[in-house]
Amino acid sequence: MIESGDRVLLVGVEREFFVKAGPGTLSTDKGQIDLGLLVGAKAGDFLTTHNGSKFTIRIPRPTDFFTYGKRSGAPMLPKDIGLVIAYTGMNHDDNVLDAGTGSGIAAIYFGGVARTVKTYEVRPEFSVLAQKNITEAKLKNVEVVTADFLAAEGLFDVIHLDMQIRPEHIEHAHSILKSGGYLACYTPFLEQMTIVVDAATGRFAEIHTHELIEREMTRSKRGTRPSTSICHSGYITVARK
Amino acid sequence: MIESGDRVLLVGVEREFFVKAGPGTLSTDKGQIDLGLLVGAKAGDFLTTHNGSKFTIRIPRPTDFFTYGKRSGAPMLPKDIGLVIAYTGMNHDDNVLDAGTGSGIAAIYFGGVARTVKTYEVRPEFSVLAQKNITEAKLKNVEVVTADFLAAEGLFDVIHLDMQIRPEHIEHAHSILKSGGYLACYTPFLEQMTIVVDAATGRFAEIHTHELIEREMTRSKRGTRPSTSICHSGYITVARK
Amino acid sequence: MIESGDRVLLVGVEREFFVKAGPGTLSTDKGQIDLGLLVGAKAGDFLTTHNGSKFTIRIPRPTDFFTYGKRSGAPMLPKDIGLVIAYTGMNHDDNVLDAGTGSGIAAIYFGGVARTVKTYEVRPEFSVLAQKNITEAKLKNVEVVTADFLAAEGLFDVIHLDMQIRPEHIEHAHSILKSGGYLACYTPFLEQMTIVVDAATGRFAEIHTHELIEREMTRSKRGTRPSTSICHSGYITVARK
Amino acid sequence: MIESGDRVLLVGVEREFFVKAGPGTLSTDKGQIDLGLLVGAKAGDFLTTHNGSKFTIRIPRPTDFFTYGKRSGAPMLPKDIGLVIAYTGMNHDDNVLDAGTGSGIAAIYFGGVARTVKTYEVRPEFSVLAQKNITEAKLKNVEVVTADFLAAEGLFDVIHLDMQIRPEHIEHAHSILKSGGYLACYTPFLEQMTIVVDAATGRFAEIHTHELIEREMTRSKRGTRPSTSICHSGYITVARK
Repeated sequence: MIESGDRVLLVGVEREFFVKAGPGTLSTDKGQIDLGLLVGAKAGDFLTTHNGSKFTIRIPRPTDFFTYGKRSGAPMLPKDIGLVIAYTGMNHDDNVLDAGTGSGIAAIYFGGVARTVKTYEVRPEFSVLAQKNITEAKLKNVEVVTADFLAAEGLFDVIHLDMQIRPEHIEHAHSILKSGGYLACYTPFLEQMTIVVDAATGRFAEIHTHELIEREMTRSKRGTRPSTSICHSGYITVARK
Repeated sequence: MIESGDRVLLVGVEREFFVKAGPGTLSTDKGQIDLGLLVGAKAGDFLTTHNGSKFTIRIPRPTDFFTYGKRSGAPMLPKDIGLVIAYTGMNHDDNVLDAGTGSGIAAIYFGGVARTVKTYEVRPEFSVLAQKNITEAKLKNVEVVTADFLAAEGLFDVIHLDMQIRPEHIEHAHSILKSGGYLACYTPFLEQMTIVVDAATGRFAEIHTHELIEREMTRSKRGTRPSTSICHSGYITVARK
Repeated sequence: MIESGDRVLLVGVEREFFVKAGPGTLSTDKGQIDLGLLVGAKAGDFLTTHNGSKFTIRIPRPTDFFTYGKRSGAPMLPKDIGLVIAYTGMNHDDNVLDAGTGSGIAAIYFGGVARTVKTYEVRPEFSVLAQKNITEAKLKNVEVVTADFLAAEGLFDVIHLDMQIRPEHIEHAHSILKSGGYLACYTPFLEQMTIVVDAATGRFAEIHTHELIEREMTRSKRGTRPSTSICHSGYITVARK
Repeated sequence: MIESGDRVLLVGVEREFFVKAGPGTLSTDKGQIDLGLLVGAKAGDFLTTHNGSKFTIRIPRPTDFFTYGKRSGAPMLPKDIGLVIAYTGMNHDDNVLDAGTGSGIAAIYFGGVARTVKTYEVRPEFSVLAQKNITEAKLKNVEVVTADFLAAEGLFDVIHLDMQIRPEHIEHAHSILKSGGYLACYTPFLEQMTIVVDAATGRFAEIHTHELIEREMTRSKRGTRPSTSICHSGYITVARK
């Protein structure tokens, strides 16, 4: 049941709106919608504009926060977030530390998977934005900490770093990672990747650097083919303690 | 705390053993280990062979079940499992239906993420094997059903199909998927992918077929380079209701 | 020595002009150049605008015709042209048949490699354009034929098809190919590729379909990384008689 | 017409033999062939073993020398040789300098395209082997020089380096390259590629580093799919003077 203040997607024909349930009116080219009617409704219900257009109510999923969440820069892509989840085997028993929160998109995905997520962001304006996105995603197990990753304490099952990584970060990650746990480091550039691999070598086991080249296959009347543009984003190094 | 019958990994220097805690002895080239000593121990503890070699105790994670779980065929690769999790935004609120259980590896990953997983496998010998792997992974939220996917009932947030897909499977998936939920279909061959896309078109929204080409970067004294072998596995079509 | 009417590249700082030597004046933002001065000059010589800017004279290479040649559509990319040359072992002893001339770019590359190239284009407006590009490239061993490929006669070492291919085209190619020679078929879509492979199977030997995914590595102050956009163009099936 | 001493391919059902025409007998599991009969024969003729098996005569093309030429190490792959030819626009007017001859395979491909090829190999045992392959390919326009690339003199249209490249090599290449000509450097490792790019920057124009990821599409009764193994070989940096 949708409560006042909840984020909701209104999905019409060829258009979507990411709105807040509660007092107010959404004006669309298909007419107006009273957002107060969202309170108490549920996913799959319809709202109708004053001139009869129908919009389906959708409760946002992490994929929607990737699309509609406020951004402070380029967030990690879902393919890379999925790689981190799969290669660390992240699951509901895990306490996860995430550093370099950015806009909090990765933390939102991780929060839906893990027991708890503690996400460190040293830039206050970024952590405020991330907190906003995480609050809207209604994740109570994700804590945003405005501090340097080197200040992080505790013991974690998975540590994920998406920041300018120096050797001392790898060393610190090792000190607060459980035996058998995983470190995953996202680095857009090759030079950063080599810093991670070199600092992890000797300290961690099972060090592997992955790169995912993603293509979409398109299918039209003319035929089936890969789309011409393919996404490179970064290298992900996964290592185990 | 490890209980009798639990799966445990014993990690020594350059060797690992996937064992069961409880009565019995493991013979290694580094000496013998009394597996009864595992009961009551915890992750990170050490066991010592009768001639002094040390083995670290590791509680298996999903990644270890990918490596050591019994197999009935080629399981989905972690990169593809991660893609399904990320592109569906699978999370702890979700009831997931998985069909084409195989050896249950994908179900184990999904079980660590979702609220519940119901996995359908029509071949009894496969479902028995999958049940064994899932039991060892101690996942109480995963149910193996030995039946055809078309017999599945209920309402799910995410449906994942890794089987020979015909148009009626796509139609059935649509009928038991919640509004806003996702269908993800894994197909090794292009011909199967086109069946999925064509059956989903008009019925589902946001239909995208992804292909992940994965490379490992290797770093040695000679230098840094992509490894020469790259993995193609299958096409994954994700569609939304 | 440059003759009147020859195509020449004038290369200045951050700008290039593809001009014709002979009577006339080129106006640039760096001043005017008397194109008559090009006649008798040679590659590497400089011309100076009336206000003192220097331009280097470059005799165009096939790469320049790819950039500056007139186009009737999307030409084959150099990576794919190179694949055809390499996988057929095209060389100065070869008589090459090319069909689907388009703007003649592939024929220009092949003409620089082979003994002779006969290129078939059924659309007169395309063959006129291609003839213009080929004449400007000063290739006397390339003949443009405005006719259907099925009308081609003779005996060739290499046949290259970049057109809507039907099974009878593959059959015809076989009939006019020398023993030991190669057929190379460029097809943007998967459906077209399967027509080629199926028609070649049983008739040709050593049938292989290649796909080249090309990435550029970029190197900046921030670091080294693959550029995010990668080119898919088509599938190239090479088969041997 | 085949002369005594010429390399010939004998192509039977599911087997091929790379032989020399002239006195001697080839023993196969399908019977014996008198190699003297090859002298005076031509491509596409048949030879028959003493017990009636037919073999087709094939005059080797560069692709066959890639397969059957004697090797001193891993030669450049055809896809990369094709890229060099295409991105430099190598053609019958060009004088090409190749350094790091290896077994001479790239020089054989280039020799079939360019006016002349001078190929430098500092290791005498490699240059002897390369000379043998080049002689068998009957290329009279390819000269093997047993010397360091830094000793090379003259003026070339295209320079190709496949060796351990240091900055002085790039500088030297620039000094013996014609205005408008191209340098192409093949480097398996990233560290070598950065040396090339950094040394070329400021000295050359149009510097681009390419990577070709090659996949084969396979088509069987089960369906069409990319083969699982994909070839990474090296980075190719092309720069223009």
